[in-house]
Amino acid sequence: MGSINHQSGPVDLSHHINSKSKARHPSPLKEIIKFMGYDGMVSLAGGLPHPALFPLEQVKFNCLTPSASLSNDRKVGSAAADPLSLTIGRGSFPGDLELTQFLQYGSGSGNRQLIEICKELTERVHAPPSKYDCLLHIGNTNAWAKVVGLLCEDNDMVIVEEFTYPSAQALWIPLGIKAVPVSADAEGIQSKKLRDLLVNWDARSRGAKRPTVLYLVSVGSNPTGVTISSQRRREIYDLCVEFDLIIVEDDPYYFLQYPGYEPSSENAVFQPKATEEFLKTLIPSFLSMDTQGRVIRLDSFSKTVFPGLRMGYFITNPVFIERLLRASEVETQDPAGLSEAFVLSLLSRWGIDGYLTWLQNLQFQYQTRRNWLLDAFYANFTVLPAANSPLPKAQGLVACVENKADGGLRPVFSFGDPEAGMFVWSKFYFQDVERFSEIEKESLEDPEQAFADELWKAWATELVLLTPGSYYHPWQGADKVSTKARGAEPRTAHFRFSFATPSEEQIHTGVKRMRKVIAKYWG
Amino acid sequence: MGSINHQSGPVDLSHHINSKSKARHPSPLKEIIKFMGYDGMVSLAGGLPHPALFPLEQVKFNCLTPSASLSNDRKVGSAAADPLSLTIGRGSFPGDLELTQFLQYGSGSGNRQLIEICKELTERVHAPPSKYDCLLHIGNTNAWAKVVGLLCEDNDMVIVEEFTYPSAQALWIPLGIKAVPVSADAEGIQSKKLRDLLVNWDARSRGAKRPTVLYLVSVGSNPTGVTISSQRRREIYDLCVEFDLIIVEDDPYYFLQYPGYEPSSENAVFQPKATEEFLKTLIPSFLSMDTQGRVIRLDSFSKTVFPGLRMGYFITNPVFIERLLRASEVETQDPAGLSEAFVLSLLSRWGIDGYLTWLQNLQFQYQTRRNWLLDAFYANFTVLPAANSPLPKAQGLVACVENKADGGLRPVFSFGDPEAGMFVWSKFYFQDVERFSEIEKESLEDPEQAFADELWKAWATELVLLTPGSYYHPWQGADKVSTKARGAEPRTAHFRFSFATPSEEQIHTGVKRMRKVIAKYWG
Repeated sequence: MGSINHQSGPVDLSHHINSKSKARHPSPLKEIIKFMGYDGMVSLAGGLPHPALFPLEQVKFNCLTPSASLSNDRKVGSAAADPLSLTIGRGSFPGDLELTQFLQYGSGSGNRQLIEICKELTERVHAPPSKYDCLLHIGNTNAWAKVVGLLCEDNDMVIVEEFTYPSAQALWIPLGIKAVPVSADAEGIQSKKLRDLLVNWDARSRGAKRPTVLYLVSVGSNPTGVTISSQRRREIYDLCVEFDLIIVEDDPYYFLQYPGYEPSSENAVFQPKATEEFLKTLIPSFLSMDTQGRVIRLDSFSKTVFPGLRMGYFITNPVFIERLLRASEVETQDPAGLSEAFVLSLLSRWGIDGYLTWLQNLQFQYQTRRNWLLDAFYANFTVLPAANSPLPKAQGLVACVENKADGGLRPVFSFGDPEAGMFVWSKFYFQDVERFSEIEKESLEDPEQAFADELWKAWATELVLLTPGSYYHPWQGADKVSTKARGAEPRTAHFRFSFATPSEEQIHTGVKRMRKVIAKYWG
Repeated sequence: MGSINHQSGPVDLSHHINSKSKARHPSPLKEIIKFMGYDGMVSLAGGLPHPALFPLEQVKFNCLTPSASLSNDRKVGSAAADPLSLTIGRGSFPGDLELTQFLQYGSGSGNRQLIEICKELTERVHAPPSKYDCLLHIGNTNAWAKVVGLLCEDNDMVIVEEFTYPSAQALWIPLGIKAVPVSADAEGIQSKKLRDLLVNWDARSRGAKRPTVLYLVSVGSNPTGVTISSQRRREIYDLCVEFDLIIVEDDPYYFLQYPGYEPSSENAVFQPKATEEFLKTLIPSFLSMDTQGRVIRLDSFSKTVFPGLRMGYFITNPVFIERLLRASEVETQDPAGLSEAFVLSLLSRWGIDGYLTWLQNLQFQYQTRRNWLLDAFYANFTVLPAANSPLPKAQGLVACVENKADGGLRPVFSFGDPEAGMFVWSKFYFQDVERFSEIEKESLEDPEQAFADELWKAWATELVLLTPGSYYHPWQGADKVSTKARGAEPRTAHFRFSFATPSEEQIHTGVKRMRKVIAKYWG
């Protein structure tokens, strides 16, 4: 693998566009717009309301600077002793930007200046090797819905990671689409397994043609926290070329990549690197290696600015962009004008380098929070590398408790140090748990899930919440839901920890409470 | 008609929900949210980013007051000598509303306080007689897409007005859905024709089951400007009960209803009525007579506040609302936070009565613009009531030019005085036009369309743009596109005039230019 001599220029991928997307025509109304620009033209053809009758004249935003102090106990608003003020206005209330354009209907593709900034950022960060375009969208949730509307027919199958983002599949389950998971290790989805799947695909027994869409949250995956390695990325990309797959790179956590955890890095202070240094620390995106134009990248401002913007952008080949624009025109139109105005104004003032400094600032904050959670694991459990643990075949690190009977170590859960994103993914081992053995004797359909539910409720009773791993099982159909039917490892179940919002104290309290319940079951 | 004794309480309409919408399940993640409210709970389960890491601290909006002077030559911004200032902030930057909630992810249904205001407004304006709920949406374009996603199966048929809004059908054409138009008169879609259609529906010859969805822009229809009369509404509603149809009431122009045109009402000044008086002047909505819960009303802030908000709300029965919410969760999420914040803040400050005063203000402004256009018609043509014109069978008013040969009057186009909305719909008569007779001899498939195109280009060359009527033809399939195949009146074609944005001078210039071209062809 990696040695395939594939065509390195752009290829015609229009056969991936599904029948419904192909059937979309440009709005005829847009044709008239060409004529509207003529000097002296009187248009009695427009359908827009009159902008003088919009009741908003000016907007002022008080913002943070890119390297604002976001110290860990920062109270909201307290860092803004020296706020950055952005003003957008019209008429007798002028500002840095003209406001009316953001109040009126747009063309469907979003503000041109903002798209130019998105392109500039794309060039700086990804430098895509094939021709691409950008299109604003209203958040990755809708962007993914539009991609499904572009590429998938009803009852298709989509390749996903072994554990996947539930909202992504909630969108396509009603279409009869099913997931085909490919197992992953610490470097992400396994290219050898992916190749086996594609080579051996039997449309008859599967009840669907070989999948043509690979959906990945490839950096700091939700829920696993895994980032696909560079080497693995190249292998996966080559497979996608060989088997004509489109890669959907849903990448909200790209800028939240961290160096590996080191205990007790207390009192660390944010010190931004030079932009180019920062960019070198980031793993190459699939887009950056996309010589053929077969990546659709979903970028979002939700994690980097704020989610309420409901705004992000597609980056992909111009043929797909044109079809996505047709869908935007009739399904959603432009992102909200105030969101566009705010981001354009903010990024214009900060500059691309300022924005990349802000992203380093965010990265540092979330890295600190990642450290808090792992600190709490080390404080409450005996944490060993898997190879040295009672579970030498496990991956990553294993959290153990002392066995009261023999003083030895009982493994409770294994986890990986997440080098990106907001989550730690854990695999719990039930084989030493007496209560689990009892449940196993009840001949339930899914004893693992039954015990996981009991454990979750016991934690909730002690006032600590985790997210059940079952939420992230790819949907393979109603007959593949139980631990056994999914072919998952017996006597295990997963839980997701989020370190994004709790304080350091809350994290320590939460893990301590968790430990108390664990002591009862594993002790 | 109108005398049917139908069940006047709510009825079970869940059989209207299509298979895909039925297959949507609530997100399991939402289940956890219940536990999050427990006192002292530590949540390591959330997936949200940290709000202290959002770079926006405060927003200030400078707005107009509800009865701001919006004089016809008003320059944007000039009326705001005494602006209303709204502030939304957090932390050390407080405001009238707390900002963080609008920056973070929402639940899918939109801000609770804003929904309450939408409900209050609904009670005041429509007082729906059956149980309903409201759900925020991201504009009527997407709202209609969600309704199609709720009610329609692929290859269904949808009943529409004789001329219909093109973006609405552009959405469903790729789904194989076709329109079934019902002809209309000055009171809107004809209930007798609708009854005939439903009674005589032959699924085999039509290739589709009897339609169950009636899509209407029932006030100031785009493009026809027609408002369905009260009597007609009752008849249509009764038919929908009898034949089990859902009425989709797409109603962006509801508050832009005008008294009939009277020439030269110059120097009129806006004088708001008491709110209850104003409300009495508005035609009852379908929602207001919906005893069974079979109306889905799409309300929008695009025409009443500004389109860039990308925000409006559904009003319909709770069963449909719940399904629409499931779709919102996975397809779009909440409207943009800054849009929600602005509208909540504005409506809280203005109050419902203030908002209704603002709507009267808008109504007056657009009414004045409607008058400008009709003034220009009267100034450039001889305008006669149809009965007294050379086209006694036409509807509404007929604009004529003098025949140079005999000094008599030649009819050019008929039009209706639009008592709502932003458009005047015109029907042009080609029978007296020599150039059209030449084209007719060329045995083209659609000589009417060919001449309409020529006329449109001649106008564009003289620097005036109208919208071709062909944009509003319901899509009945590729075999029903030409004038003849559609069964339209021979030797006629339609054009739409918009009076929303041009100035009085532009309107007069535009109509004069139009007249010049008409003189050439009809003179």
